[in-house]
Amino acid sequence: MAERLKFWGWGREGEGPDDAALNRIAQSLGQRFGRELELVAPPRIDEIALRPPRLAPPPALREILSADPHERARHTYGRSYRDIVRTLARDFREPPDWVAFPRDAGDVAAVLDWCSASRCAVIPFGGGSSVVGGVEARLGDAYAGVVSLDLARLDRVLEIDRSSRAARIQAGILGPALEDALRPHGLTLRHYPQSFEFSTLGGWIATRSGGHFATRYTHIDEFVESLVALTPRGRLETRRLPGSGAGPSPDRLFLGSEGALGVITEAWLRLQDRPRWRARADALFASFEQAVAAVRALGQSGLEPANCRLLDADEAASAAGGSGEHALLLLAFESADHPLGPWLERGIEILRDHGGRVQEQSAREQSDDGGARAGAAGTWRSSFVGAPYLRDGMVRMGVLSETFETAVTWDRFATFHAAVIGAAREAVREHCGQGRVTCRFTHVYPDGPAPYYTVLAPAERGRELEQWDAIKARVSEALIAHGGTITHHHAVGRDHQPWYTAEAPALFRSMLAAAKREVDPAGILNPGVLVDVT
Amino acid sequence: MAERLKFWGWGREGEGPDDAALNRIAQSLGQRFGRELELVAPPRIDEIALRPPRLAPPPALREILSADPHERARHTYGRSYRDIVRTLARDFREPPDWVAFPRDAGDVAAVLDWCSASRCAVIPFGGGSSVVGGVEARLGDAYAGVVSLDLARLDRVLEIDRSSRAARIQAGILGPALEDALRPHGLTLRHYPQSFEFSTLGGWIATRSGGHFATRYTHIDEFVESLVALTPRGRLETRRLPGSGAGPSPDRLFLGSEGALGVITEAWLRLQDRPRWRARADALFASFEQAVAAVRALGQSGLEPANCRLLDADEAASAAGGSGEHALLLLAFESADHPLGPWLERGIEILRDHGGRVQEQSAREQSDDGGARAGAAGTWRSSFVGAPYLRDGMVRMGVLSETFETAVTWDRFATFHAAVIGAAREAVREHCGQGRVTCRFTHVYPDGPAPYYTVLAPAERGRELEQWDAIKARVSEALIAHGGTITHHHAVGRDHQPWYTAEAPALFRSMLAAAKREVDPAGILNPGVLVDVT
Repeated sequence: MAERLKFWGWGREGEGPDDAALNRIAQSLGQRFGRELELVAPPRIDEIALRPPRLAPPPALREILSADPHERARHTYGRSYRDIVRTLARDFREPPDWVAFPRDAGDVAAVLDWCSASRCAVIPFGGGSSVVGGVEARLGDAYAGVVSLDLARLDRVLEIDRSSRAARIQAGILGPALEDALRPHGLTLRHYPQSFEFSTLGGWIATRSGGHFATRYTHIDEFVESLVALTPRGRLETRRLPGSGAGPSPDRLFLGSEGALGVITEAWLRLQDRPRWRARADALFASFEQAVAAVRALGQSGLEPANCRLLDADEAASAAGGSGEHALLLLAFESADHPLGPWLERGIEILRDHGGRVQEQSAREQSDDGGARAGAAGTWRSSFVGAPYLRDGMVRMGVLSETFETAVTWDRFATFHAAVIGAAREAVREHCGQGRVTCRFTHVYPDGPAPYYTVLAPAERGRELEQWDAIKARVSEALIAHGGTITHHHAVGRDHQPWYTAEAPALFRSMLAAAKREVDPAGILNPGVLVDVT
Repeated sequence: MAERLKFWGWGREGEGPDDAALNRIAQSLGQRFGRELELVAPPRIDEIALRPPRLAPPPALREILSADPHERARHTYGRSYRDIVRTLARDFREPPDWVAFPRDAGDVAAVLDWCSASRCAVIPFGGGSSVVGGVEARLGDAYAGVVSLDLARLDRVLEIDRSSRAARIQAGILGPALEDALRPHGLTLRHYPQSFEFSTLGGWIATRSGGHFATRYTHIDEFVESLVALTPRGRLETRRLPGSGAGPSPDRLFLGSEGALGVITEAWLRLQDRPRWRARADALFASFEQAVAAVRALGQSGLEPANCRLLDADEAASAAGGSGEHALLLLAFESADHPLGPWLERGIEILRDHGGRVQEQSAREQSDDGGARAGAAGTWRSSFVGAPYLRDGMVRMGVLSETFETAVTWDRFATFHAAVIGAAREAVREHCGQGRVTCRFTHVYPDGPAPYYTVLAPAERGRELEQWDAIKARVSEALIAHGGTITHHHAVGRDHQPWYTAEAPALFRSMLAAAKREVDPAGILNPGVLVDVT
């Protein structure tokens, strides 16, 4: 049987690099930063003093509510740098009073009824992988209590429509279970956010997560055919359709609603046939600017590569084994229908037209997509999946390790990138003395890229939150001032709320608040996220 | 100088087939229906008695308001069968009291202020090509008056961003002027609804219009980067971004809002490079079912054809010169970046795999996309653009000529299509004695098609509305009962409202109404569309 989930960090107990491995990394990073890095021990649950539940549930709900300390602690935070810092500091000052594990829609409705009547906040919880304070009860005494509503038991694929390539799926299913259920039918959702292993379909929909595809269908939005949301005022089910022009899309109002408008319990999802052909090429560029021009040309070519990730020279070195002198572009095509030779050929022409030096290339039929990947793409992929484990280790050794991401149109990109990475580097220098800020593109649209920045710096024990909050504020201001979005696929949560307010039109936020009051008159659903607490 | 727009039918005065041509068609259709068909004369403006304006505007607005009978009559209806029937019957019983032609955003705001203060309804008006009662003041005495707010003067491309391939464009621009302004930059929106010549960008956005592309980017939704809407409570401008995950999309709330939430005055649109390569093939199929299977395979292939229109045997005969024995599939690819040989080859393989007999095929580089098209596709294209003119002529000769359209998932399609076309044929027989119902696919998604039905039947003078309303009700019930949408790209308007109510979740409609009250507290914006009059 699988080990239980850690209450403080990424993944399951016993998983991730062991202390010996972390100590080796600490030594190397310590040399780089010129200081000794020591590992803090992960917290044990018996070290955590949790506030007793502030309200008693009705007896009928006792069966699905837990006050188990491990569960309450595990549901206290998401998994951002701020979150891991606090768990390592044994700081669990605002745990949920209860964790609910509904077995069905009736249970969800019963929890909403009880909480509406008791002014108890409800925080819908999928995999808990939020990195923006999306599942955290930062509420003080504004509510009589807080219930974390964990959808883990709603974890089944209910129905498969092979001819439309679609499935009806419960919201609490985790990525791997979802793919396991689809595989026998030759189908796949192919939506792989970095959190894939420990995030849920409902979480992806509620946060507009970004997935596998680098171009075209990047957000989960495109795959939602219809959904069911339960609200304090009742059930809402959108109509399952391939397309419609009947008024504003109801799905699009719930996509990105982050638990503030309702609890998404199931959805029909558009699927793909499992890819059979793959073609890929890696290219090195002497300058980041040349590589950016190549990405723009690829993004506007209509070739629609499945992968088109650009890593700057520093990222290429740390994540894909590069020399640190060249930007690296990973280009890939995939298809269940046809060989991809002509697609790759044209893609390579574009790479070369922009000064790219093609390192490796291949175009072939593959038996399945589960196997290991070759070359830089393979190295990049394992580092991608392993990153959250490693990040926990970094925090344990006192290293600030965090990311921020955005999107911006091409016309603004050069100025934007200089300003943002400049602001980040300056803030890192100011608050940590030294450190590194690197950039990659995670997704590419015809009209602009989604740049993703990684910060690595020595932190000061006890001042980590202060340091990061200062850096985060500086970069967030730069993102907004220079025309970017506060988030391309990490959602708003509580951490981004001040800049969301600057980004989203004021009248739209009033409209959203009015829509929320209509379905959540007591204001219990994930209060403080998107709509201010009233 | 161009002739002025007809106040009663499609296009400009003097355009469309002349009476001699219509008489030839009347003779042929008359033989078919076994009755004599006589042309009713188009109305002259001096035959129309318009109710005098019910309220007087403030002097400051006089400059932009017109009570000219031609303008009031032209703004009374859209251009559906119901609308043409009424104009030919000289029935203009609910004209707008005034037609406003704002010169800028300030004028729009001034009209909204005046109307909010006077409980005067405001109906935003683009090209007036609605076929669903979207611009019609079906309001009785619920309001002190009605202003048709015509955005024709907001008709400029304001800014072009070549690197992101985007442009900031005023909402009142018509399709041809928009393309003319983009052409010198090598760019195109490539959004060609059938109304292209006489519909506006703002209208496309407000109604989620369906355009040129048969697969992938079918709706204007995908091309909107950001927009500006003016509401009675003020101005709302969304942020220009290639992508974002910051909360529910504000753009998507205004896409399809049909003038009920605000007046869209401008938008940033994603553009395309003008296509340079084209590849096409036409194929005949012995059965509609085989052709449907081919369309599904093409839609799920990832080849993303620009055109993938299926015409059933009857449509192929009347619109593309077919023999009436075969369904016709028009397949085309286009690219500004690369030759399309491999795309077409695989497309043709799929056609043949499903029993398609390929008639004509070509893959070549072309100098521009403005020229004439060859073969069945060319014939189909001229019939597509000419159809609205011809339809007016049909109504003049007493022929019921109307369409309805929808979308449905593949798993339901066979049952759905049988039920819908069955209901339509039965209703046509019952109410008109005889007639023809045909089907084509206008757009294709991986998870289902957008079928489009055309009805042609002999009408009874004076009972046209009654006949059509009965047929429309019967087919609309079938669409909803069998899992389709009440509209894929014609919008809701007033005609679809009863079935929109059945299609859209009740709680979503409450949320939409609440959002509307927030920006339009007096309820003056296009009352009765999407949200009930309160």
